[in-house]
Amino acid sequence: MAATDPAASRTRRERIHDLIFGYDTPAGKAFDLALIIMILASVTAVMFDSVEPQSVAIDHFLYRLEWFFTLVFTLEYGLRIYSSPQPKRYVFSFYGMIDLLSILPTYITFVFPAANFLVVIRILRVLRVFRILKLFRYVGEANLLFTALVNARRKILIFLFSVINLIVVFGTTMFIIEGPENGFHNIPRSIYWAIVTITTVGYGDITPHTALGQTIAALAMICGYAIIAVPTGIIGAELMQEFQSRGAPSPKHQRNCPHCGAGDHQSDATFCRLCGGVLTRES
Amino acid sequence: MAATDPAASRTRRERIHDLIFGYDTPAGKAFDLALIIMILASVTAVMFDSVEPQSVAIDHFLYRLEWFFTLVFTLEYGLRIYSSPQPKRYVFSFYGMIDLLSILPTYITFVFPAANFLVVIRILRVLRVFRILKLFRYVGEANLLFTALVNARRKILIFLFSVINLIVVFGTTMFIIEGPENGFHNIPRSIYWAIVTITTVGYGDITPHTALGQTIAALAMICGYAIIAVPTGIIGAELMQEFQSRGAPSPKHQRNCPHCGAGDHQSDATFCRLCGGVLTRES
Amino acid sequence: MAATDPAASRTRRERIHDLIFGYDTPAGKAFDLALIIMILASVTAVMFDSVEPQSVAIDHFLYRLEWFFTLVFTLEYGLRIYSSPQPKRYVFSFYGMIDLLSILPTYITFVFPAANFLVVIRILRVLRVFRILKLFRYVGEANLLFTALVNARRKILIFLFSVINLIVVFGTTMFIIEGPENGFHNIPRSIYWAIVTITTVGYGDITPHTALGQTIAALAMICGYAIIAVPTGIIGAELMQEFQSRGAPSPKHQRNCPHCGAGDHQSDATFCRLCGGVLTRES
Amino acid sequence: MAATDPAASRTRRERIHDLIFGYDTPAGKAFDLALIIMILASVTAVMFDSVEPQSVAIDHFLYRLEWFFTLVFTLEYGLRIYSSPQPKRYVFSFYGMIDLLSILPTYITFVFPAANFLVVIRILRVLRVFRILKLFRYVGEANLLFTALVNARRKILIFLFSVINLIVVFGTTMFIIEGPENGFHNIPRSIYWAIVTITTVGYGDITPHTALGQTIAALAMICGYAIIAVPTGIIGAELMQEFQSRGAPSPKHQRNCPHCGAGDHQSDATFCRLCGGVLTRES
Repeated sequence: MAATDPAASRTRRERIHDLIFGYDTPAGKAFDLALIIMILASVTAVMFDSVEPQSVAIDHFLYRLEWFFTLVFTLEYGLRIYSSPQPKRYVFSFYGMIDLLSILPTYITFVFPAANFLVVIRILRVLRVFRILKLFRYVGEANLLFTALVNARRKILIFLFSVINLIVVFGTTMFIIEGPENGFHNIPRSIYWAIVTITTVGYGDITPHTALGQTIAALAMICGYAIIAVPTGIIGAELMQEFQSRGAPSPKHQRNCPHCGAGDHQSDATFCRLCGGVLTRES
Repeated sequence: MAATDPAASRTRRERIHDLIFGYDTPAGKAFDLALIIMILASVTAVMFDSVEPQSVAIDHFLYRLEWFFTLVFTLEYGLRIYSSPQPKRYVFSFYGMIDLLSILPTYITFVFPAANFLVVIRILRVLRVFRILKLFRYVGEANLLFTALVNARRKILIFLFSVINLIVVFGTTMFIIEGPENGFHNIPRSIYWAIVTITTVGYGDITPHTALGQTIAALAMICGYAIIAVPTGIIGAELMQEFQSRGAPSPKHQRNCPHCGAGDHQSDATFCRLCGGVLTRES
Repeated sequence: MAATDPAASRTRRERIHDLIFGYDTPAGKAFDLALIIMILASVTAVMFDSVEPQSVAIDHFLYRLEWFFTLVFTLEYGLRIYSSPQPKRYVFSFYGMIDLLSILPTYITFVFPAANFLVVIRILRVLRVFRILKLFRYVGEANLLFTALVNARRKILIFLFSVINLIVVFGTTMFIIEGPENGFHNIPRSIYWAIVTITTVGYGDITPHTALGQTIAALAMICGYAIIAVPTGIIGAELMQEFQSRGAPSPKHQRNCPHCGAGDHQSDATFCRLCGGVLTRES
Repeated sequence: MAATDPAASRTRRERIHDLIFGYDTPAGKAFDLALIIMILASVTAVMFDSVEPQSVAIDHFLYRLEWFFTLVFTLEYGLRIYSSPQPKRYVFSFYGMIDLLSILPTYITFVFPAANFLVVIRILRVLRVFRILKLFRYVGEANLLFTALVNARRKILIFLFSVINLIVVFGTTMFIIEGPENGFHNIPRSIYWAIVTITTVGYGDITPHTALGQTIAALAMICGYAIIAVPTGIIGAELMQEFQSRGAPSPKHQRNCPHCGAGDHQSDATFCRLCGGVLTRES
């Protein structure tokens, strides 16, 4: 093995690289598709394994299947490191971390058996599906969403900070008013109640029993109901902004007047609205 | 019957076609209205039938009513096929499928009695009501909504895909933390809990009992509460986009060209975009 | 009484009219304010009356208070009819109906005692508060909201119609899958469950117990979670539209170029962006 | 001490002022950071203290820690008053009130022991964190959010007023229909139920049991589900408005005037709005 001449080795490594990192060749696409199917099969197997009463035969089969998938994924991980031009960068990249995290749990079960179910983290590898879709328009759309979220990050942080303050104050107030005898055993548990209430989840495992407590709870609910409008408005406005700045695929933004240069014409315009000159269809 | 001359037959078929497919003649409208009333009556009867303690007499009456409606709808289905210019296209169309599905369950009850309640699928036939409204402005509005949803489909898919990943990760984490002794019996059930929580439904049939579990649950709730903003923002921004490109009836579009009569001009237009004539400021 | 000369009578009637219908004189304002305080006091008394264990003395007091308020409101209703220039129009107007409905329940208690609590409908009379605010900017804002809702009515109807279809189909499916043994006793009750789930209220009084039922329920939740975005988007886009067409109080829409007539200048503009002419500050 | 010459005293006071009120010197920043850490530590200690079964040693430690923090905060409060140029204005300012409220509870425990937990109000002091961030862009964003909320205040008040009316009517109706035997003991409790339902929290501690009650409840849920769209739309539209009037960093604003360097020009501008010079298309 050490005797293979470097040129051939480089070629083989490159071929492996194209196969497992590439997504624009038929082989690369087929590899990615097979990978995603295996990931989904593996995750399904783990889920099925967690369902209690099963025969010993099925348990054995699932156990072996799990190891089979783990070994395949370990091999794939090895090949990714081997074929990567910059192995270190791959290992510490987002996908590299997920690839490692998705095989580790099975090995950890030797020490800590319950870790078995952590392999579900494998589901994150399915994010790879976006790579296959890269050639299509999905990535542009995802970027648009992502840009909007990034632009809104400060506003969302301020919002979250205010909500957390609100939750702590409401939680503690309810602990003082209702007290341990009504299920509000301590402040952290009361804060858990405040989160359940303000997010409008409302399990009902802890509920106020005194009249004053119900009044405060009603206030908390109306707060939660009203402030949900804030992040929604933020994201909506950011997206709208993003749409407009990209001149989203609405036809009227596509043409400029050849006489005065004005843009922003309606889709059925024949004449420029500012100089009255004839517009060309294509521009 | 086979002896009727083709011309007369075609005429009769056409008349039936106008009656049951048409909606712009008084007879066609009356037919559609009668149909919708019968569908609603039939669905109401089925619902009423499902309410347990009833006298034998009522049960008998409902049973006969059900068969009466089914036979009428079967006859109507037959006439639709008979009068349709392209019977095959009708049978495999959206409405054709629903029409068939809404009569099948009653016949299936010979083999599988519980199928009886499936006739509720008949409610979908009420969608036909949109056809009657076609002549009014409802369809344009529905199209606007539909276009916005179609334009947003990729963003919504990316969003749903991310939410599913989140749900699987949260569900499995809770299964490991809380375990079967707290109601999280297996991963699918934990995922069901995660969906109940992230969508902020919050039944409370499964709730975390450990402090760590409650912390993770609180995180899941805040996630669910925050990300609801994303689809809302997407749809809102798409609708806004749609509104602007259609130039909704806002006052600034009220000017009409004095030369060609065209309306819907942009606010800063000096010349008509269709004929190039000068626009008057006030009009 | 019949002997009073018509001129004096008209003057007295007009004075009463100004007092109870007017809101721009100090006396009219004071009357409206006193009325709202009495309405709130009356509603509070009814609420307090519904709280079970009270002494006989308090019960008696509340009973008399109720009759006092009812008699005052009856007198006011009589004066409104007497002083109204078109009594019939008042009686059948929105406020006229509410005024009548808010005194009727107490009289009905002679026949049907439980009707007592219906006087809470009096709370609707507080809507009169908007009349006092009429002179301020609240009415313009309320109109803006109202116009947006009216413009969106068709889209909202289409949306509600689709949601009702969805609810009926989900409800019936769950009735067939889960059945009476899991709390889904009949179709109406299952539809109640579907509404509780799709609106993300999630009481937890009826919950799915089978694996298939939980899967369908999860689908219903995700549906409900996703489609909430539609009405929100509709209202948001309509409001935005409304804002833009009213040229909301943003300074940049207030000035037109005195040379070329172009509007839509930024707030700090000194020169017209289209013709380069000097803009006047006030215009 | 009284013998220190006034000039030195003023200098010392000023130095203290810069330390505890300032945030643009390294010392001022370090002080604010230390303060926030102490506040968080203090709040955490109080929360931990509320968790029931703990050893006597820990209880003692927490008790002393609480007094330590209170004394430090009292000293800080004293220094703030001492070093403030206008002590009165500070004491009655928003932050001044919070600073006082955050030390009072511990002293009140001499009289009323349960007050202990009120020190959680200290969490509000963390709002001071915004001061440290003042130099960064967070404050501008917070202002934008705040302006949008202030602009929308009238619309939100009208919305809240309508929702409260709806809640009172639904609550009372359910009290009459369901009655005390189904958990709707009195009108205030029924109104609590209405709030839990309309805000889609849905604890499930009070649920309708009669068919009519469930129908009314279903109506209330659909109302709550639909009207959440209104505040969301309001905030979204206001934010959008705010964005547009500030001319957020969208590409069309990227052109700079070659004469005076001003940016932020509208997309169809030919002349600079500030100097009237001709703009070049590309820049």
